[in-house]
Amino acid sequence: MHIKDKLAHAEATGRPGISFEFFPPKTAQGVQNLYDRMDRMHGYGPSFIDVTWGAGGRLSELTCEMVNVAQTVYGLETCMHLTCTDMPREKVDAALQSAFKAGCTNILALRGDPPREKEKWEATEGGFRYARDLVKYIREKYGNHFDIGVAGYPEGCEDQDDPELLMQHLKEKVDAGGTFIITQMFYDVDNFLTWIKKCRESGINVPIIPGIMPISTYASFIRRSNWTKIRVPPEWMEALEPVKNDDAAVRNLGKSLVAKMCKTLLENGIHHLHFYTMNLQQATKMVLDELGLIPSHETPLQKPLPWRQSLGLGRREEDVRPIFWRHRHTSYVARTQTWDEYPNGRWTDSRSPAFGELDTYGIGLKGTNEQNIQLFGEPKSIKELSDIFIRFLNGKLERLPWSEAAVTEETEIIRSDLIDLNSRGFLTINSQPAINGIHSSNPIYGWGPKNGYVYQKAYLELLVPPTLIDDVLTRIEQNADLTYYCVNRAGELRTNTSDSPNAVTWGIFASKEIIQPTIVETVSFLAWKDEAYRLGDDWAKCHAAHSPSRRLIQQVMDTWYLVNIVNNDFHKTHDIFNLFKDLKVKDLDVELEPLAPAAEPAESTPQQSGQAEKQVNGTTAEAAEPKKESNAN
Amino acid sequence: MHIKDKLAHAEATGRPGISFEFFPPKTAQGVQNLYDRMDRMHGYGPSFIDVTWGAGGRLSELTCEMVNVAQTVYGLETCMHLTCTDMPREKVDAALQSAFKAGCTNILALRGDPPREKEKWEATEGGFRYARDLVKYIREKYGNHFDIGVAGYPEGCEDQDDPELLMQHLKEKVDAGGTFIITQMFYDVDNFLTWIKKCRESGINVPIIPGIMPISTYASFIRRSNWTKIRVPPEWMEALEPVKNDDAAVRNLGKSLVAKMCKTLLENGIHHLHFYTMNLQQATKMVLDELGLIPSHETPLQKPLPWRQSLGLGRREEDVRPIFWRHRHTSYVARTQTWDEYPNGRWTDSRSPAFGELDTYGIGLKGTNEQNIQLFGEPKSIKELSDIFIRFLNGKLERLPWSEAAVTEETEIIRSDLIDLNSRGFLTINSQPAINGIHSSNPIYGWGPKNGYVYQKAYLELLVPPTLIDDVLTRIEQNADLTYYCVNRAGELRTNTSDSPNAVTWGIFASKEIIQPTIVETVSFLAWKDEAYRLGDDWAKCHAAHSPSRRLIQQVMDTWYLVNIVNNDFHKTHDIFNLFKDLKVKDLDVELEPLAPAAEPAESTPQQSGQAEKQVNGTTAEAAEPKKESNAN
Repeated sequence: MHIKDKLAHAEATGRPGISFEFFPPKTAQGVQNLYDRMDRMHGYGPSFIDVTWGAGGRLSELTCEMVNVAQTVYGLETCMHLTCTDMPREKVDAALQSAFKAGCTNILALRGDPPREKEKWEATEGGFRYARDLVKYIREKYGNHFDIGVAGYPEGCEDQDDPELLMQHLKEKVDAGGTFIITQMFYDVDNFLTWIKKCRESGINVPIIPGIMPISTYASFIRRSNWTKIRVPPEWMEALEPVKNDDAAVRNLGKSLVAKMCKTLLENGIHHLHFYTMNLQQATKMVLDELGLIPSHETPLQKPLPWRQSLGLGRREEDVRPIFWRHRHTSYVARTQTWDEYPNGRWTDSRSPAFGELDTYGIGLKGTNEQNIQLFGEPKSIKELSDIFIRFLNGKLERLPWSEAAVTEETEIIRSDLIDLNSRGFLTINSQPAINGIHSSNPIYGWGPKNGYVYQKAYLELLVPPTLIDDVLTRIEQNADLTYYCVNRAGELRTNTSDSPNAVTWGIFASKEIIQPTIVETVSFLAWKDEAYRLGDDWAKCHAAHSPSRRLIQQVMDTWYLVNIVNNDFHKTHDIFNLFKDLKVKDLDVELEPLAPAAEPAESTPQQSGQAEKQVNGTTAEAAEPKKESNAN
Repeated sequence: MHIKDKLAHAEATGRPGISFEFFPPKTAQGVQNLYDRMDRMHGYGPSFIDVTWGAGGRLSELTCEMVNVAQTVYGLETCMHLTCTDMPREKVDAALQSAFKAGCTNILALRGDPPREKEKWEATEGGFRYARDLVKYIREKYGNHFDIGVAGYPEGCEDQDDPELLMQHLKEKVDAGGTFIITQMFYDVDNFLTWIKKCRESGINVPIIPGIMPISTYASFIRRSNWTKIRVPPEWMEALEPVKNDDAAVRNLGKSLVAKMCKTLLENGIHHLHFYTMNLQQATKMVLDELGLIPSHETPLQKPLPWRQSLGLGRREEDVRPIFWRHRHTSYVARTQTWDEYPNGRWTDSRSPAFGELDTYGIGLKGTNEQNIQLFGEPKSIKELSDIFIRFLNGKLERLPWSEAAVTEETEIIRSDLIDLNSRGFLTINSQPAINGIHSSNPIYGWGPKNGYVYQKAYLELLVPPTLIDDVLTRIEQNADLTYYCVNRAGELRTNTSDSPNAVTWGIFASKEIIQPTIVETVSFLAWKDEAYRLGDDWAKCHAAHSPSRRLIQQVMDTWYLVNIVNNDFHKTHDIFNLFKDLKVKDLDVELEPLAPAAEPAESTPQQSGQAEKQVNGTTAEAAEPKKESNAN
């Protein structure tokens, strides 16, 4: 969506828009951290983010990659910066094509800073001299595909102080096809408002977005102010100077000063605030908090669908997904990235889904072996394994191998049922309660337009040991409301339903067709099965080859069944748990012992390793022998 | 769907299947009456009907036409008879192609009776000699598209009495590709059961359907028994002979005898009964009643969708329609007959619908002018006009120009609201109450598979006079739950909603996507508008050119607005009626007088005629003058 349309929407609804600017970090770990931060900051509801252009080979590629990830994985409307500095035409073409393919529809066209070794800015051979040339080129080449922003300098830019000339340049950039303006940072509101007036008098009528730089530390505040030569109101200096050595006090005072400036802007006809985050979350969040712009239970963020929409090329219309990847958003996007069409309302209308291979980027278990051992510990019995799931359900663990994020409030209704099930040795990896027509504005379960009603069928996905699977399936089949799919790692599928997709989340809205964003369906379940077992394998392999934890987890993966159950009567949540009444996995407490290296068969495959030794939890008769030992490792 | 699959389904569910045989009537009125009868008999839930082959040019064309109408308009799974008699290969080809195009997938392949003038049966030049040749030909030409039935003769056929030879012929027909057998009529059950046994011993393993001939009159019973040379059990003759001159007694006794025979069949492994209706309804209905096979509130007929599905070629997947044609089923089918694709779940996914012209067969007002005047009377005031709508709503009128059938039980919830609205001069032509999750098996509102829940948004479509339209629309816009479309005959559209289809009927079922069979949508509303005004024009034209009724109805058509309103909160039915609180059409009782021919402008168009004279119901200021006259015509 074009930024100018988002700005028009913010103006129409009266709720101020916000946006965040990020730059490509220098290290791989920095990139991952930034993605996590962008993901969290998605929760503040930015209208868009932008990613600055990384001058030089690797960093410019990183800009393109970040734009792609932000659009497709995090569903953030992204504006890509593009500069003239050091950019021959082929590089500009490649960058635009990359943005296009990422589904990006917004470019901020800049001249860029001069390369360090040169004193004065010069156009690259075969490149563009002025931002207006770049704007014109993009407009000529891509028509109206891209919304094109340009930079405004209310207080002059580093090599040009003449306000008249700067205004003339700005007008030229807009006339060349710029449709919105983002300004350089400033702290002098009065000057800014006067400057806007002059822009309008000069015939510049596109929206102008003020660039806001929150204050993190006194040192960075002073450095940036000096560098950009902007005016700092004397009262700001007077307030900050006395506390300059107290970082917390600076941040707190800075927040108040910046928030006050933002309020003045909003009171003077500005509808959107653009934050220079410097890749940091805290200072921006403090300002937004002060302004009351952080979504809350009272003013929840509008979620168009219950899951995060991808804005990848051609994906904006996607409005249905299998429930299996509900907590593995990134891998779903990765495994469907080659699809030409995304299912639009009817899964069956889409081409038979061919899910990407498991080796695609982003699909394996998150974190290093050490991190995972530290996070999950070293379980040696089913009891210790299921305790990990219980810790997760209690909000004490930030993720599980099958869930890339912590448990959400939605689980509250069924948390005790889930904990009870895990305490008896069933390992639950996905679930939702039944919801019978809750208002779409409900902060926990709601999604979609206002004044609608949303529904869910109760859903439970769990791992069941082979000794209990027949019993469980027999119980399911006795309840006419329940449908299930059951599969083992070899892919042997059992089900009591035909192949038709089962809508398990849907919403009724004014003047719309029924939206049914989440389904349970055979082909995708089989694709998920591969991933679910693989994640367990990855987890097992975090542990040393002969360790009890490795063998324990591997055995579960090799012999247990992955089962999903839907209660088709969406008035009922608890039937699905009552199914398991009085069922308990055997030998919960039996601990595996470390094996001596010699005792282990050479080059054991996962399947072999599961069969070649004594197994826990009743997968073989021997396992029934209880072992009463201390917990000593 | 293939008959053999329907038979397998009946066997699996344990509920006996039934089917009805019809033949092409000799007159056009007979054809229309038969369609009406087929439509009523659809309510008995036949698995299929069949239409006999009309030997000779016009009648064979009529067979093809009846197959097409039964499939596409009445949604009856139809089996077309095809004979070898007088049928060169080209005629067989044409008949099969016609059946294919009608969406028909079942053929009963027969040798046929010898043409009257010939004593012995002979193959037509270039045609087929035996039914088995025809079976083989159809199989070769169409593969498995058609399910092919063949005839069985438990008591011999007219030119062959040798049971061994007949059994051999039957075996040959099945071996050639026949997949089910329908037998000649019989009354001797024991003989039939013995014959079935012999069929099985001879290796004939396809389903065998007994042909049942109900008894209408003694004369026809004797005539057919003699003609087919079948055995009549002596006790039947003994019972019927004494009452042979009392038609009612014969029918009643005959019903008992035939029903008893059917019971014996059903107790002996027969799962389907095929009735030779002789194009009559009563005798067959009596037998079905006696057998308890007529659907009732306790055993309602399963309706896959809230409207009658068409089984036309490629239409079986159609599962969404605009609500506007809810009571004009035939014209919807006719106006969409050229569509290559029918909307499957998402109206927006279908190609932009191009509705057929109004002059297509079946779209105008039903009945002759005289019939319509007799039915609706000659209204001379808005009051008299709205009384017609009230009579319809009270079940006293079998149809309205905008509704091809009588009011249904579904209206009960809102009947008094509708009557109240009409009594104040608003003319309501379509409506449904809100339904919030009623069981899908509900005999009135239910549809779709068992164990589901169905929903509706309240809907009202009505004609509103120009003096009140602004008031009505203002009131609608004050209620955030309501969306509307309003149009006049010139096509000037007003609405408070975007173009997105609004699902107004939907159902939630086990292991399925949400089904949303009825929508409100702009393009189709505009197509319906043409039809709605045209039906009114047709009605006006039933009356003499200078008559008050003609001018009254024409004025309404020329000046009133067609408005539809949806309450998007499906918990609320009555808001949509409360809208009209205290509103009343002006001058309800003002009666138009006949015009002298000279007073009327020559060659007036409908529009002119509406403007050239004094108008009722406040369309001009003059109309406000009350006229207190007697009701004398």
